Amino acid sequence: MLAVRNVYLDHAATTPAHPKVVEAMLPYFTDKFGNPSNLHDRGREAKNAIEEARAKTAALIGARPEEIFFTSSGAESNNFALKGLAQANSQKGRNIIVSQIEHFSVLHAAKTLEKSGFTVTYLPVDKQGLVDPADAARAINKDTVLVSIMHANNEIGTIEPIKEISAITREKGVLFHTDAVGVLFHTDAVATTGWIPVDVKALGVDALSLSGHQFYGPKGAAALYVRKNVRIKPQIEGGIQEDGRRAGTENVPALVGLGKASEIAAAEIPRRMSHIAALRDRLQKGLVERIDHLVINGHPSSRLPNHLNVSLWYVEGESMLLFLNMEGISVSSGSACTSRSLKASHVLTCIGTDAAVANGTLLMTLGMGNTAEDIDYVIEKLPPIVQRLREMSPLYEDMIKKEKAG
Amino acid sequence: MLAVRNVYLDHAATTPAHPKVVEAMLPYFTDKFGNPSNLHDRGREAKNAIEEARAKTAALIGARPEEIFFTSSGAESNNFALKGLAQANSQKGRNIIVSQIEHFSVLHAAKTLEKSGFTVTYLPVDKQGLVDPADAARAINKDTVLVSIMHANNEIGTIEPIKEISAITREKGVLFHTDAVGVLFHTDAVATTGWIPVDVKALGVDALSLSGHQFYGPKGAAALYVRKNVRIKPQIEGGIQEDGRRAGTENVPALVGLGKASEIAAAEIPRRMSHIAALRDRLQKGLVERIDHLVINGHPSSRLPNHLNVSLWYVEGESMLLFLNMEGISVSSGSACTSRSLKASHVLTCIGTDAAVANGTLLMTLGMGNTAEDIDYVIEKLPPIVQRLREMSPLYEDMIKKEKAG
Repeated sequence: MLAVRNVYLDHAATTPAHPKVVEAMLPYFTDKFGNPSNLHDRGREAKNAIEEARAKTAALIGARPEEIFFTSSGAESNNFALKGLAQANSQKGRNIIVSQIEHFSVLHAAKTLEKSGFTVTYLPVDKQGLVDPADAARAINKDTVLVSIMHANNEIGTIEPIKEISAITREKGVLFHTDAVGVLFHTDAVATTGWIPVDVKALGVDALSLSGHQFYGPKGAAALYVRKNVRIKPQIEGGIQEDGRRAGTENVPALVGLGKASEIAAAEIPRRMSHIAALRDRLQKGLVERIDHLVINGHPSSRLPNHLNVSLWYVEGESMLLFLNMEGISVSSGSACTSRSLKASHVLTCIGTDAAVANGTLLMTLGMGNTAEDIDYVIEKLPPIVQRLREMSPLYEDMIKKEKAG
Repeated sequence: MLAVRNVYLDHAATTPAHPKVVEAMLPYFTDKFGNPSNLHDRGREAKNAIEEARAKTAALIGARPEEIFFTSSGAESNNFALKGLAQANSQKGRNIIVSQIEHFSVLHAAKTLEKSGFTVTYLPVDKQGLVDPADAARAINKDTVLVSIMHANNEIGTIEPIKEISAITREKGVLFHTDAVGVLFHTDAVATTGWIPVDVKALGVDALSLSGHQFYGPKGAAALYVRKNVRIKPQIEGGIQEDGRRAGTENVPALVGLGKASEIAAAEIPRRMSHIAALRDRLQKGLVERIDHLVINGHPSSRLPNHLNVSLWYVEGESMLLFLNMEGISVSSGSACTSRSLKASHVLTCIGTDAAVANGTLLMTLGMGNTAEDIDYVIEKLPPIVQRLREMSPLYEDMIKKEKAG
């Protein structure tokens, strides 16, 4: 049986490329196919295209074009930031501070640095996923070279107090380091860029990761912002592309697409926020009203407008995903990057979610293509699925008995 | 004035994507836009697409699909191979052997390993750019963990004796190491894949780099072949994509394009070789007949079918490129990756080319789109440009005087 409707609620995993993004990319596959490193007209044409894309990407986050280094993915940007900044500035110190709920591309890069002689301090978060700036202040010492705290968590949507933490890294930087650079502060803004305002100056960060396919750009195009005069060690070495910071022939069509997506986002963010938050709130309200023993994860207000992460007691999450899929509804249980590993989310563990409940988690992330009808369809379809799965759970049966007895 | 004709002779820098490649990619930007990590239908659709691309890429080089790890560029593949293999196998030894004419993505990765405690042995090449397998045999010792010699040089087109060298690494591996893996052998096949037959079993290599946009695939899609049971340390860490070896959301459309380009190449290589070599020989003959003091770089027979690299005495190469560009002819002076650095090619230096002559070098690399008329156009246009530039050179004037006197 075909699903009545297709509802995609997995925009945190990936978004479709905007039709105008694809249109902008197309000429660069076959007609304007030059290598930007070449000095002839075909090369110059490609070079001009990526420089225009760089300017547009920079404009979206309030950076200068020369502070944007293109990469192939958010994961590459995060690895580049952590390893590149730590390695290039290790004379300043060898301590790195990250939060416990960072994306694995930050956590695993930190782990690799740990093996090469750095120490890593992991900051806890509260039950809503917030890092306490006071914890950051206490953790920073004279050996601290880099702090990396994500702008918003990709699973629970909690927006971190980046401005407050960057004020602390600046203050401590002056205290502990004699140079102008101080304690470096990187933020992984892959979940926020294109959805809420992201401004590197307002945030006060030295480096910031973003990824195109998370906001209607193409896959394969991402960027790392690195503030002027901040040193970073290249991780992909070879040619002198990206001002010598990242070798490899530039992915011209994808970068053109990222530029276009940035331009569209810059104009559309307010509309995105209001449209999507309204739908998200409708979805949240509808589900809370119809499903008991439901926990909303993340911060109630400091949260991404398109995020709804719920844990359902007495439900096996994977089955729920598959039943929803049969109804044409695409959602996730957590981060796409680890969904095939079938392990409990480290983010939910860190905010204190019981493992049994974490297992019944749905991550629903909305986008511009979703309508009120989509949302009502999900509100209609999910409750009976939950009920059916709960009826198969012995723990649920026990709970009902206890409730009736009590 | 518009150029009469557009002749692209820079296929070593990049190729246009084949129209069928673009056609194959298109649905994956907007319609089939899923993230392969997702368990729902959209995710599965994307996952199936990249696994089909993996099988096609594997088939082109005689590998198994599970031995193909996708990356974003040849440079990334080379960095991944050098650093990943050396780091994951350092308990076997800490010596690495490369040739002096490797691409900078190999040489710079080797340099970084040198700084972290590895030793690097650089093998020389002869005047035609060939590595002597006997030199490799002498260089390998019990501390050698990895040998990396390119399949063919991207500037002078010389095809290296990979089979002979891999026989030596195998023999020495048994001698020096007790495990089944022995001395690892990586080859950078970015210049050869899609142009001449490349078979990992026939070559006898443990790892091999290839890049899509070098053979009518899209930019942003490349691969590293790693033989089964060979350990490699991930360089981009995070999610469990690419069997845990390379994190980051897969660039689905580009990988689909790489698969299609591999499929087309597998069927077309014999025709490519004969068509292009005939044109290349016509170009070489025409230029040799019409221009004196011209040196052909690279090996006369063990050379890529589409490569012609010539050094012209008494000519400033950059000016030659610009005059050719005005006639609609796109060529390079050497590797695209370094052309903006304006330094003499390390490859030409290593084969003993005089710096003054190296400066007057043209790298012309042909492709399937070139015709006999294109070639005749270049044969007509280049000689007067060379003559005009030589007439501006005081060294040329001296030479002419001496010739007349002598």
